[in-house]
Amino acid sequence: MITETDFSALLRQAVEERNGPATAEAVTHLHAADIAHIFNDLDDDSQLYLYEILSNETAAEVLLDIDADERRNFLNTLSAKEIAEDIIIEMDSDDAADIMAELPENRQDQIIAHLDDEEHARSIVDLMRYGDDVAGGLMGTEMVTVNQNLSIISAVKEMRKQAEEMDEVYSIYVVDDSNKLLGILSLKKLLTTSSSTKVSEVYNSKLVSVRDTSSASEVAQLIQKYDLYEVPVVDARGELVGKITVDDVLDYITEEAEKDYQLASGISSDVDASDNIFSLTKARLPWLFIGMVGGLVGSRVLQSNEESLQAIPALMFFVPLIAATAGNIGVQASAIIVQGLASNTLGKDVFKTLVKEVSVSAASGLILALIILGFNLLINHNELLVSATISISLLTVILIAAVIGTLVPLILKRNNIDPAIATGPFITTSNDIMGVFIYFTIAKVMLHI
Amino acid sequence: MITETDFSALLRQAVEERNGPATAEAVTHLHAADIAHIFNDLDDDSQLYLYEILSNETAAEVLLDIDADERRNFLNTLSAKEIAEDIIIEMDSDDAADIMAELPENRQDQIIAHLDDEEHARSIVDLMRYGDDVAGGLMGTEMVTVNQNLSIISAVKEMRKQAEEMDEVYSIYVVDDSNKLLGILSLKKLLTTSSSTKVSEVYNSKLVSVRDTSSASEVAQLIQKYDLYEVPVVDARGELVGKITVDDVLDYITEEAEKDYQLASGISSDVDASDNIFSLTKARLPWLFIGMVGGLVGSRVLQSNEESLQAIPALMFFVPLIAATAGNIGVQASAIIVQGLASNTLGKDVFKTLVKEVSVSAASGLILALIILGFNLLINHNELLVSATISISLLTVILIAAVIGTLVPLILKRNNIDPAIATGPFITTSNDIMGVFIYFTIAKVMLHI
Repeated sequence: MITETDFSALLRQAVEERNGPATAEAVTHLHAADIAHIFNDLDDDSQLYLYEILSNETAAEVLLDIDADERRNFLNTLSAKEIAEDIIIEMDSDDAADIMAELPENRQDQIIAHLDDEEHARSIVDLMRYGDDVAGGLMGTEMVTVNQNLSIISAVKEMRKQAEEMDEVYSIYVVDDSNKLLGILSLKKLLTTSSSTKVSEVYNSKLVSVRDTSSASEVAQLIQKYDLYEVPVVDARGELVGKITVDDVLDYITEEAEKDYQLASGISSDVDASDNIFSLTKARLPWLFIGMVGGLVGSRVLQSNEESLQAIPALMFFVPLIAATAGNIGVQASAIIVQGLASNTLGKDVFKTLVKEVSVSAASGLILALIILGFNLLINHNELLVSATISISLLTVILIAAVIGTLVPLILKRNNIDPAIATGPFITTSNDIMGVFIYFTIAKVMLHI
Repeated sequence: MITETDFSALLRQAVEERNGPATAEAVTHLHAADIAHIFNDLDDDSQLYLYEILSNETAAEVLLDIDADERRNFLNTLSAKEIAEDIIIEMDSDDAADIMAELPENRQDQIIAHLDDEEHARSIVDLMRYGDDVAGGLMGTEMVTVNQNLSIISAVKEMRKQAEEMDEVYSIYVVDDSNKLLGILSLKKLLTTSSSTKVSEVYNSKLVSVRDTSSASEVAQLIQKYDLYEVPVVDARGELVGKITVDDVLDYITEEAEKDYQLASGISSDVDASDNIFSLTKARLPWLFIGMVGGLVGSRVLQSNEESLQAIPALMFFVPLIAATAGNIGVQASAIIVQGLASNTLGKDVFKTLVKEVSVSAASGLILALIILGFNLLINHNELLVSATISISLLTVILIAAVIGTLVPLILKRNNIDPAIATGPFITTSNDIMGVFIYFTIAKVMLHI
């Protein structure tokens, strides 16, 4: 069990006092992720001091775990040779490729040129060609693979050789002579099988794999569906080219969930509470601007109905209620659709989805409309016709908002736009305006104004 | 690589035709998760037919993967003896405990009484005592543990014995004579160490563990921070009592993210698009109701300002804009705080957080207020004083909404209420009303009405 907090405090102090032995001692008790947390907060000089004391292996892990801004900043103080020989060489190819992708192109070339391990260099260059959002961009190339024709005892020898170069081994992949992926050899099987047995007799061929071109969300869904720790990646020929571990996917899932949540809350890009005021404002202004334009359009709708409002002031008092309810229904409907799309639980039949969504909204709408009717007649003592107008408008607006809230994300998805946008202020605002517009249209017809 | 879709279609057809051999054949090509997907859709008779053909092991996995409603329904058709001897015995203790918890108490007792494996029965009963949201409730008790005093060769023998009873092995835990957790023995070390070496010389003591009473969110944070596949669980005495695997935490993280997203979208409990109309309506009505009550209060605020509105109609047209902007700012502010709380990136200093949030909102608010001022003067040709009133109100409302949006989630968190509630219609609605109220107060003072 780690007592991380104590050693973290010791490390901070030791670095501040430039106490070499104490720094080295504290470091041995901390995980890289904890050292990274401290590294993030240090000034440039202290970062360099701490970096020099860390072993190359730990330094590489720490650099992986710090904020991207800090990393870029720190790597600028090192030469391409240092980055190649001290850091990149210590990293798994997928992590190395991710970090390289953050650097300017000419620097990437210099670093690659300084890498002595040609296979590692080639893996990194290969991985950098993949986009962030496909399996190839998430995968690492470090794996233990054994040929199906080996005996368990020879397989163990082969694994030993390969394991020397790796951080950790969790899965053993079984391939044929042309590196085609056949299956997986579990640690359990390895432990419980006699050593002369052939790998081909005991490996598990019921294996989930993904193509290097599969989307990251597909990979995430597979890993969740089958409860996997690792998933192997194959190319078009079925050859094993890499593996994706659950921790990479976990980061992806968390980021996607945060993105959806932020879109639903009217924040446009990936920011968090610790970002600076400028980034935070920049991420929020676009949605506020949409809301403002919506508000201005709304003000025009009201203005053009000034006469109706002067004639029957009671109508005016329910403008915010109608607008807010339309917005709420729209967001609820689209959130259900967006999550259904994300989790693949939505049926293929758009019409059926629509009917269901409208039914749910009709049920809620009827209840709300009746309550408002009662409120208007009994408490506000409004005329029956005015009260009926308000309730009928409310119900109509709710039904139309439900249709819009259902169809917009489906249409966005069909056009390859992130449907989560539809849960944000965009749909609230357009439903607000639509709601007020319908309200006055119905009022004009029913009240002859 | 699996061609899951083809075999899924075959399985559906085979079950429908009650074709035993074809059903058995299709099943061998499918993962339990895929069989579960089909099982979910079958009628009661077909479910029983398919169940009878599945091996006990596969049946147990399938039952774990189907919807909770379907599972309860199906388990009702089996006797306690069948459940114990065919299903529960095949499951890891944590899964068994989860499923048992869904059943009525007297049935739980009957099932436990039918379990021949006393150790398994004891594990399940122990696990059922923990809540869903603590480490003990997430952990399984199936582990491979070796004593530090063993040699690698004896350790492998011991592991073989233990592995026989387990589905899969990923980590090997090292304990002392009194079962206190000391560290972990990696597969890599096992592969690359000579067989006479003692376990105590090669195990890794830099190990992250959690207490059985730690909260599920703490566990999730640790697993993400340290990129773990498994985390061992210890009791108050430091003894190893179980392990939590990343797939359990992945489910927890996904559920929490969905819950937050739904709360932000005004949906109160965990529903998805495939639920029935009644559940969907029930989950949405409470928030709509809050919105409606807010709308009614808003209508009262407008009503009490009827004279001002009659005197200066221009004021009225900006009611929706003020209300919507207040709502949007509030949701943005609270979403940033809620996510900061969830990811632990929020500083301890509440005052600093508040100053930052107000600064961001002031920057956005100033820009919006100036645009509206220009719009009112140049396009609407409103009087300067009326235009100024609207812009000053907008800025004031934005600042106050930011304060409310920041403080409400912090206060909720301090009182152990899920702060994500604050991003829903609750905060939009209260900010709506607050916005309109402030608007008229400022208007009365500035315009002497």
